[in-house]
Amino acid sequence: MKKLALFLLLGCAFSVQAQLRNDDVHKLPEMRRNLTRTPIRIPDVNGYQTLKCDFHTHTVFSDGNVWPNMRVQEAWQEGLDAIAITDHIEYLPHKDQIKSDLNESYKIAKKEGDDIGFIVIKGSEITRSKPLGHLNALFIQDSEKLNVDDPLQAIDEAVNQGAFIMWNHPGWPDNKSTMYPVHEELINAGKINGYEVFNHMESYPLTFDWYSDKNLAPMANTDIHGLTANDYFLNDGLRPMTLVFADNKSEKGIRDALFAGRSLALFNNTLVGNPDLLTALVKASLQVVPVTDKKSEVTNLSDIPFTLTANGEMYIFPAGKTVRISTPEPDTQFVVENCLTGKDKPLQIMATAFNY
Amino acid sequence: MKKLALFLLLGCAFSVQAQLRNDDVHKLPEMRRNLTRTPIRIPDVNGYQTLKCDFHTHTVFSDGNVWPNMRVQEAWQEGLDAIAITDHIEYLPHKDQIKSDLNESYKIAKKEGDDIGFIVIKGSEITRSKPLGHLNALFIQDSEKLNVDDPLQAIDEAVNQGAFIMWNHPGWPDNKSTMYPVHEELINAGKINGYEVFNHMESYPLTFDWYSDKNLAPMANTDIHGLTANDYFLNDGLRPMTLVFADNKSEKGIRDALFAGRSLALFNNTLVGNPDLLTALVKASLQVVPVTDKKSEVTNLSDIPFTLTANGEMYIFPAGKTVRISTPEPDTQFVVENCLTGKDKPLQIMATAFNY
Amino acid sequence: MKKLALFLLLGCAFSVQAQLRNDDVHKLPEMRRNLTRTPIRIPDVNGYQTLKCDFHTHTVFSDGNVWPNMRVQEAWQEGLDAIAITDHIEYLPHKDQIKSDLNESYKIAKKEGDDIGFIVIKGSEITRSKPLGHLNALFIQDSEKLNVDDPLQAIDEAVNQGAFIMWNHPGWPDNKSTMYPVHEELINAGKINGYEVFNHMESYPLTFDWYSDKNLAPMANTDIHGLTANDYFLNDGLRPMTLVFADNKSEKGIRDALFAGRSLALFNNTLVGNPDLLTALVKASLQVVPVTDKKSEVTNLSDIPFTLTANGEMYIFPAGKTVRISTPEPDTQFVVENCLTGKDKPLQIMATAFNY
Amino acid sequence: MKKLALFLLLGCAFSVQAQLRNDDVHKLPEMRRNLTRTPIRIPDVNGYQTLKCDFHTHTVFSDGNVWPNMRVQEAWQEGLDAIAITDHIEYLPHKDQIKSDLNESYKIAKKEGDDIGFIVIKGSEITRSKPLGHLNALFIQDSEKLNVDDPLQAIDEAVNQGAFIMWNHPGWPDNKSTMYPVHEELINAGKINGYEVFNHMESYPLTFDWYSDKNLAPMANTDIHGLTANDYFLNDGLRPMTLVFADNKSEKGIRDALFAGRSLALFNNTLVGNPDLLTALVKASLQVVPVTDKKSEVTNLSDIPFTLTANGEMYIFPAGKTVRISTPEPDTQFVVENCLTGKDKPLQIMATAFNY
Repeated sequence: MKKLALFLLLGCAFSVQAQLRNDDVHKLPEMRRNLTRTPIRIPDVNGYQTLKCDFHTHTVFSDGNVWPNMRVQEAWQEGLDAIAITDHIEYLPHKDQIKSDLNESYKIAKKEGDDIGFIVIKGSEITRSKPLGHLNALFIQDSEKLNVDDPLQAIDEAVNQGAFIMWNHPGWPDNKSTMYPVHEELINAGKINGYEVFNHMESYPLTFDWYSDKNLAPMANTDIHGLTANDYFLNDGLRPMTLVFADNKSEKGIRDALFAGRSLALFNNTLVGNPDLLTALVKASLQVVPVTDKKSEVTNLSDIPFTLTANGEMYIFPAGKTVRISTPEPDTQFVVENCLTGKDKPLQIMATAFNY
Repeated sequence: MKKLALFLLLGCAFSVQAQLRNDDVHKLPEMRRNLTRTPIRIPDVNGYQTLKCDFHTHTVFSDGNVWPNMRVQEAWQEGLDAIAITDHIEYLPHKDQIKSDLNESYKIAKKEGDDIGFIVIKGSEITRSKPLGHLNALFIQDSEKLNVDDPLQAIDEAVNQGAFIMWNHPGWPDNKSTMYPVHEELINAGKINGYEVFNHMESYPLTFDWYSDKNLAPMANTDIHGLTANDYFLNDGLRPMTLVFADNKSEKGIRDALFAGRSLALFNNTLVGNPDLLTALVKASLQVVPVTDKKSEVTNLSDIPFTLTANGEMYIFPAGKTVRISTPEPDTQFVVENCLTGKDKPLQIMATAFNY
Repeated sequence: MKKLALFLLLGCAFSVQAQLRNDDVHKLPEMRRNLTRTPIRIPDVNGYQTLKCDFHTHTVFSDGNVWPNMRVQEAWQEGLDAIAITDHIEYLPHKDQIKSDLNESYKIAKKEGDDIGFIVIKGSEITRSKPLGHLNALFIQDSEKLNVDDPLQAIDEAVNQGAFIMWNHPGWPDNKSTMYPVHEELINAGKINGYEVFNHMESYPLTFDWYSDKNLAPMANTDIHGLTANDYFLNDGLRPMTLVFADNKSEKGIRDALFAGRSLALFNNTLVGNPDLLTALVKASLQVVPVTDKKSEVTNLSDIPFTLTANGEMYIFPAGKTVRISTPEPDTQFVVENCLTGKDKPLQIMATAFNY
Repeated sequence: MKKLALFLLLGCAFSVQAQLRNDDVHKLPEMRRNLTRTPIRIPDVNGYQTLKCDFHTHTVFSDGNVWPNMRVQEAWQEGLDAIAITDHIEYLPHKDQIKSDLNESYKIAKKEGDDIGFIVIKGSEITRSKPLGHLNALFIQDSEKLNVDDPLQAIDEAVNQGAFIMWNHPGWPDNKSTMYPVHEELINAGKINGYEVFNHMESYPLTFDWYSDKNLAPMANTDIHGLTANDYFLNDGLRPMTLVFADNKSEKGIRDALFAGRSLALFNNTLVGNPDLLTALVKASLQVVPVTDKKSEVTNLSDIPFTLTANGEMYIFPAGKTVRISTPEPDTQFVVENCLTGKDKPLQIMATAFNY
């Protein structure tokens, strides 16, 4: 309503009309959503840049439904910093119509990324049945070389290419989040480096402690085949993403951070991972400012809503809003209900942590 | 916020949790936007069903960026009743990777449509430079037969297949909405039956009278190559669409209506076309109910906002809202600013038309 | 964004600009939200009109913070059909500044209601400490006569005036929803006729069965002192309201329906009350249409989202949306999680009830 | 949808349920909008704090419809930093019910402000017919002393109390924005210090140059009588406000800034005032970052959308969004269509100003 009025008020921008809007053609640049990005506000912490990444996506070159450039476009529009293209090696349902090698989808996406300044990571999904299941090899050089019968051989090849190996959706498709001996062996051999706490629309509570028990980077990804705008209610919350705490915004910065385990899984307004990173993120997100003797204003600087409880009170801090609360006693112990350091282990944080 | 509370209130649906949410896996069906459709509320008029259609879309099989099934999914989610798949015949930039005949994209989309009960129309875009420009042949049988050197021969073949021929974006790409002799001849020969008043993000004011001067069906289409959710601010308004007033909701019903000229072009909250159809639609949309001696409530039953003016007053009726106004004198002449019967010809409607 | 473009497209409505927007003054009628009402879509059932009512509101004439006309304005804007003005009799914190009798706030609100065609009911809140607690006398004639020491005498006077007596917030302020002997006696004597299942931001599960056990009309009200727009996230859901199923839209129609127990309490997207009314409302709200051999589209015609479960599946039907589901077997037993016929008693409904 | 899922995921916060949600009472703190504030993001400039103020509001103590505390509550919730209570001196339509002196409404509002840490300024509206019209005396000590027959005497008294005098809605009620000799004299005598470019839903283009021609502080205020949430579509834009550039966030800081003319009028996404302040604000709001050789990302850090034009192109930068554009040539001259330095004088700004 406002914008309508704005232009009536201005009597319209004539110089513009002259060129954009004559009798032959009226153009509507104000509709160009494809050039509009919604930044995701999540604070940097501990001297690292907080990068929002999706390490599991598909295109028409395997069983996805979009041309690779669309993956980059949607991720850019939705405020991400980087994505990996991870088409299946062994599962190519469109092969009757699409003739191409396994590196093609990355090439197309990378070109789009370079064209708009967006990080695109080369990956492949090694796709086998359980016990092994699916694994994403990230930061690889040549997908074709992973196309071999023995999956362990494919993993070795990926590792030789410098891959970070992620174990995908441990609880899918049999609704069992079982860690089999093969996984133990690969983890111990440093050939599995991360895992999905969340995939598309599922999470796997039994795995919430693995990041510490097994020293793996926790990750959350979309595993998107269609388009995120059609699969998620993005107006109601963020798409799943892996928060990576990097020295700098680059492919190398992301790879180094993942190998160092500096990641958090963000899904459905819930964060899972290392308590130090979680504490730092909550502290950086919730700014507490006393406004009277007894009252304080808490401003949530991030786009993640936080739900805290203490002494039987619940405090919900919506994204980007300020909430007025009674200034808590310094010895108040808050439970951050949507930050989990493990299964059924919400983060505990002292009021003093907020330095108000 | 409410929904959160709802479930706390219910103490959660335990029977559901047991199966959807155990320690191995938590599923979130409430996120399944891909199964959610936003109906478009536009009233039926004159005994016809008002169908919302998009007769111009592309897929990876020409220069589009999505697999054909995605066109159906997005259109269904966004409340449309039918779409046409109209890949280019002569322009196939993905042909190095995609090996297929010109009928393939329709086949894939049609299968998706049949699977979910959505109307998919077979079409092809005959793609030549001006003066002829681009034409969509709709309701055809075999796209391969249109793949000939002489575009007039292609048009004849399409006509033989029973095609409805639409002249696409008259003002593109040279920003001139010129009707050339070839168009006059084709129109007179009944080989051009409709035209785009609006295409993607452009409209062509010089063409606003053609629907009557040339007896053509006015149309508005997306000509979408990416995805509508990424190209339009759908929260702020509807995607471009052609309103078709059909005897019944079927491909035949749509084809008959188009040949009978029973369509309106809807774009950017503006309707263009026949005054009788426009008047019927405005009357059916705006329900006027006197509530006191002097005041009436006007409820806009449609998802199209209407802007009326009379006696120097402006009345804006947002979609789905009720607005209280002074009951107008019966002889009040309203101008419906966003309903155009031609270039610079907003619809005029008498207060009495609203039978309050 | 669209609307902005609309007017550029139209080159602005000059006749309008001439009068609304000259150099001396630009007026912005499109900003006039105060004349805009958001209708609440809840279907009529069983031949009754479904009226949305709030039977508990305050003004500056007791401890509220708005002039009585504002109660009418906000309720009209928010889609309600009727409200009761129920200022306290015994608690008048503004009495140092406001000198007036106990009937004044109703008079002012009624004048506003008559001016815009909105139903305003005369009430008073008899305000005592527990065990009796607070009671609203609705549909009374003279509040002054209720201003007596003995609350039971005040109740008798109200009954003599034809009042419907509602027991307010049974669980407030001591967080105990105890029915005391005095309530039993009044109920048995027909001097308490309804009760609040929900008040402002609280509900009282222990009372969810009283509507049947004690034959009382279940009610949900705001007990608003400030303004609903400032106290509720209205964009995320409806304000609390009592749904009244009336023969006609009038004060008498509402009173008759309440005495007949034809009401449901709606709060926080949850309905509480009679299973027959709930079943009728769910059936009228959820329209099931098979679209293929195996799939159906379920359109929620109401502004209340519904959450159903069956066979371990959860189905969420957002307000006004269509959701595609596998057509359920006729013998499927659905649990409507947000419709309660009593404490921990969600409504059960057979698939066949939807006549698809 | 997300939040619902969040809590299912967490299996609900039992410790919380125990206390907030037992069988006797379920409380819903997540609904407590009255404690939630939506911060307005407008950058500080030139070393000043950018404060958002409303210097024209009414309460039930004159012809407003809310108790004074509500003015403070709504302003705090809507992100403002300060308001003035400016009830009429001569127009008291509620005087039959409200018995009080002219200082009472400020006292009540100030108490609320002190309770939550919000700045409330004491004012009064001197209310006469044209030519003089209405004037707000701000930062006064005693409203009763302004209650005299001769308005010029009232102005002198206000000035003696240290008042900043604002000329209200110059174009109301006769739709003529005429500056009469009495205004000239008062301005020359330093007894009118500011004026309303915008009031409630009107603006006065003829006055757009007065801030410089007459050396007056430009101001935009709501002149709210009801509630802003009921009068404006706040979801579509900000309420009218005066931006004050202050040394510090205090009543004195605001007063000093106004007397120094450091203000901008913000209404309907349009800013009016000093070109240096406007340029500084646009520069601080639009952050331009080159991302490739040819492309840059422009992030609008403010909640004010900006519309720029250059070389026949239109660039719309929505609040809080990032837009990708072709990196402009350094010598590009932008016109900021929604920043006016006078009547029909949009701000001009060079590309180089953005230091990209």
